[in-house]
Amino acid sequence: MPANKQIHLDNRPQGEATAANFKLIMAQTPPLDEGQVLVRHHYLSLDPYMRGRMNDAKSYAAPQPLGQVMQGGAAGEVVESRSPRYVAGDKVVGMGGWQEYSVVNAEQPGSLRKVDTTHVPLSHYLGAVGMPGVTAWYGLVKIIEPQAGKTMVVSAATGAVGSAFGVLAKQRGCRAVGIAGGPDKCRYAVDELGFDACIDYREYKDAASLSRALRDACPDGIDGYFENVGGLVLDAVLLRMNAFGRIALCGMIAGYDGQPLPMTYPQLILTNRLKIQGFIVSEHMEVWPQALAELGTLVGTGKLRPRESVAQGIEAAPEAFLGLLKGKNFGKQLVKLV
Amino acid sequence: MPANKQIHLDNRPQGEATAANFKLIMAQTPPLDEGQVLVRHHYLSLDPYMRGRMNDAKSYAAPQPLGQVMQGGAAGEVVESRSPRYVAGDKVVGMGGWQEYSVVNAEQPGSLRKVDTTHVPLSHYLGAVGMPGVTAWYGLVKIIEPQAGKTMVVSAATGAVGSAFGVLAKQRGCRAVGIAGGPDKCRYAVDELGFDACIDYREYKDAASLSRALRDACPDGIDGYFENVGGLVLDAVLLRMNAFGRIALCGMIAGYDGQPLPMTYPQLILTNRLKIQGFIVSEHMEVWPQALAELGTLVGTGKLRPRESVAQGIEAAPEAFLGLLKGKNFGKQLVKLV
Repeated sequence: MPANKQIHLDNRPQGEATAANFKLIMAQTPPLDEGQVLVRHHYLSLDPYMRGRMNDAKSYAAPQPLGQVMQGGAAGEVVESRSPRYVAGDKVVGMGGWQEYSVVNAEQPGSLRKVDTTHVPLSHYLGAVGMPGVTAWYGLVKIIEPQAGKTMVVSAATGAVGSAFGVLAKQRGCRAVGIAGGPDKCRYAVDELGFDACIDYREYKDAASLSRALRDACPDGIDGYFENVGGLVLDAVLLRMNAFGRIALCGMIAGYDGQPLPMTYPQLILTNRLKIQGFIVSEHMEVWPQALAELGTLVGTGKLRPRESVAQGIEAAPEAFLGLLKGKNFGKQLVKLV
Repeated sequence: MPANKQIHLDNRPQGEATAANFKLIMAQTPPLDEGQVLVRHHYLSLDPYMRGRMNDAKSYAAPQPLGQVMQGGAAGEVVESRSPRYVAGDKVVGMGGWQEYSVVNAEQPGSLRKVDTTHVPLSHYLGAVGMPGVTAWYGLVKIIEPQAGKTMVVSAATGAVGSAFGVLAKQRGCRAVGIAGGPDKCRYAVDELGFDACIDYREYKDAASLSRALRDACPDGIDGYFENVGGLVLDAVLLRMNAFGRIALCGMIAGYDGQPLPMTYPQLILTNRLKIQGFIVSEHMEVWPQALAELGTLVGTGKLRPRESVAQGIEAAPEAFLGLLKGKNFGKQLVKLV
């Protein structure tokens, strides 16, 4: 029974989340029951959606319970198995949470996914070839339904979702334009991810000036938009949407601390006959195999080279997570445990 | 060549529209060319969308040109024909505009529609069995896609669009809840149109209190919403939408004078995985035959008994239109010329 360090949610944020919301706990892994496996976590996934669940608010998922391990994706290796489905040494991805080990009921469908690390590094199964990649795929393919030659825009363009979105859009013959924070991220978006242009939103004080920059980057207007951020960025994009444009609404990170985040001109939805649709990728498990197959091929063949920010050791998880919420990460934010 | 009184748009509104924006013109009908017919207008249709077109703003339709006849639907009778398609005495509906007569190129597809007034009075072809009825039908059937037992809400519930929406929703086994201005309209919605409940929005000062009234009227939440108004009403409804709810956005009359009309909590689109879609019914001509057939049957069989506000004489059109924008009408606003 190895020792198992865990990060619990100790109390809920009042406004901005802080390190004091979390607590490090020294636990032990329990003995396995029949059908269970013990997974040693190599990587924890840190994702913006976790901030939403720290609030005690009605949302699509139940709030993260207090005094329990922070929920989230983890990738690792089976170290002990009492299930015929897994043997020690199997590389797996599941919802292990912020801890060093997890005990998983392997018989429960969807609890664990075996992955092949021959061509795709294990960590990418938490990013481009995992939930964030499928999120980008669903928004683009199922909500935006892009056509070649049309212009696709994504905010948080160098994050795990945005980078996959850009490459998926380019694969479909679209013009891909990113919005990101800072010149380094914008350069990376264009040079490494293949975006046609990337706008540094930090250079713009208001929606009107950001909208003018979008006009230059999107001379034919915007046909599809994948929203991770909300607020000023959404306002600016709405001003440039073409008739019959589509917006996949996946995150509104700008409002997670409870700030008001009004949409200034909802009239534009009417005048441009837009469709805006919110979605949660875990409610569309039917698309995962198809999406993961495409994403795995893109990563395996080097067409999608996701960048990662890697924090070391479970004690670093809270600070890395708070940095993610401020955009300090560059690409997929992970915590490496092994 | 009969004399032909016309109302022109003389100048554009600065903020609220006023009677001074319009001008009465005494014209003559020109002689007919081959293929043309002369229609004497019995009824003019007044519709909220016309206010949007009085502005010189980018929108789905070109602005109403200055110094020309106000565009709009009209129903009347062919009084002279040089087209083999029509004979004098035919009852027709078209886009004749705010004038006593119109000259129509009958060969142009869609320019004129012959109607049967045996079971449906001519005026209803401008309302329940015309553009407003099809608008309600399209939003309900094609965007909301209602299921029996679900709750449907519509604002401006006793208007030409809202009243058709309520009856169409009831036909599909839904709970129909209206929002309207004033106790008389609410009583009419329930007693005559068959709404299960109707809320007088004028009784509520803010979105939170209106939202509480909606909670009482919609104990199972709201699954589909047809928006004619925007602003506070949309905010209140968004707070009560169920997961996977759908909103058909057809009008935002509250913002026609240029008022800011922000959507306060766009986050709800994400947390409840809503779809919001704007549409213009004239872009979906393929549904008109099916929609008009259902609406005609509902009116002909007395299941939909639309109410009308009828102004007398073309000189009354501007004031009747300004009243419509303030909700002074009760049901479909018409101008009777004959």
